[in-house]
Amino acid sequence: LTDIEEISYNSYMPTNEMKIMYKVWLDCDGKAFGEGPDRLLQRVEACGSLHKAAAEMKMSYRKAWLMLRAMERRLGFPLLVRKVGGVSGGGSRLTPEAFDLMKRYEAFRRELDGVLHEIYTKHFG
Amino acid sequence: LTDIEEISYNSYMPTNEMKIMYKVWLDCDGKAFGEGPDRLLQRVEACGSLHKAAAEMKMSYRKAWLMLRAMERRLGFPLLVRKVGGVSGGGSRLTPEAFDLMKRYEAFRRELDGVLHEIYTKHFG
Repeated sequence: LTDIEEISYNSYMPTNEMKIMYKVWLDCDGKAFGEGPDRLLQRVEACGSLHKAAAEMKMSYRKAWLMLRAMERRLGFPLLVRKVGGVSGGGSRLTPEAFDLMKRYEAFRRELDGVLHEIYTKHFG
Repeated sequence: LTDIEEISYNSYMPTNEMKIMYKVWLDCDGKAFGEGPDRLLQRVEACGSLHKAAAEMKMSYRKAWLMLRAMERRLGFPLLVRKVGGVSGGGSRLTPEAFDLMKRYEAFRRELDGVLHEIYTKHFG
C-alpha cells in the first residue's frame, strides 16, 4: 500500500454497527412463500379483505393478487377464498391450508432467527 | 368453494419439489458482504485480476469495482489492492482482511446451511 492509499482507507470508518441480515423463502420453480406474503396474509386475516390488506402494505391490489395467485400455483393449494355477498359486500378469508402454512413458516422463522444469530456470533463475534 | 373453484385448484399440481432457499449478508447501512462478493473474490484469488474475475462472472468490470468499493466503505477495510507493474502488467490481489472475512463467511454459511435444513425439515418435513 502507498501512503495515499493508507490514508484513504483509514477514512473508511463504518458509522453504524455491522449486522447479519437474511431472507428465506419456499421455492418451487419460483417463490412459493416468504416473509412478504406471510405479512400480507396476516393483514387479510385481520381486516377480512385483500383490497384493504394490500393498501395497508402500500401494494397495489393487482400486484398482491398476482403474487398470491402465483404462490397458490406453486404451493398446489389456495391461500384465499372470496366471501361472497352479505351485508359487508364480500371480502377474502384465509383457507385452512394458508393458516397451517403461516403457522409452520412463522415457527420456522422464529427458530431460525435465534440459531442464525448464535452462529453469526460464533464466527464474527 | 364452488365446484368450478375446486376443479381449478386441483389443477394446481406443483411439478417440482418444494425447497427452502435463502440469502444471508452482512449489512452496515447497506450490503457489506455476501455470497456474490465472496464468489467474486474467490475468482480474483484464482486468476489474480478483477477484470478477469468479473468477466468470468459475466459482470461488467465497472459494476464489480463499484460493488467492492461500496463494501470496503461499509466494512471499514480494503478487500483488494492493485499489483503494480511487473511482467504480467499488474492485476489485483486480496488483502489479509479479505481472506479473513471470506474464511469466516464461508464457515458461517456452511454451518448455517446444515442447521437451516434441519430446522426446515422439522417444521415442513
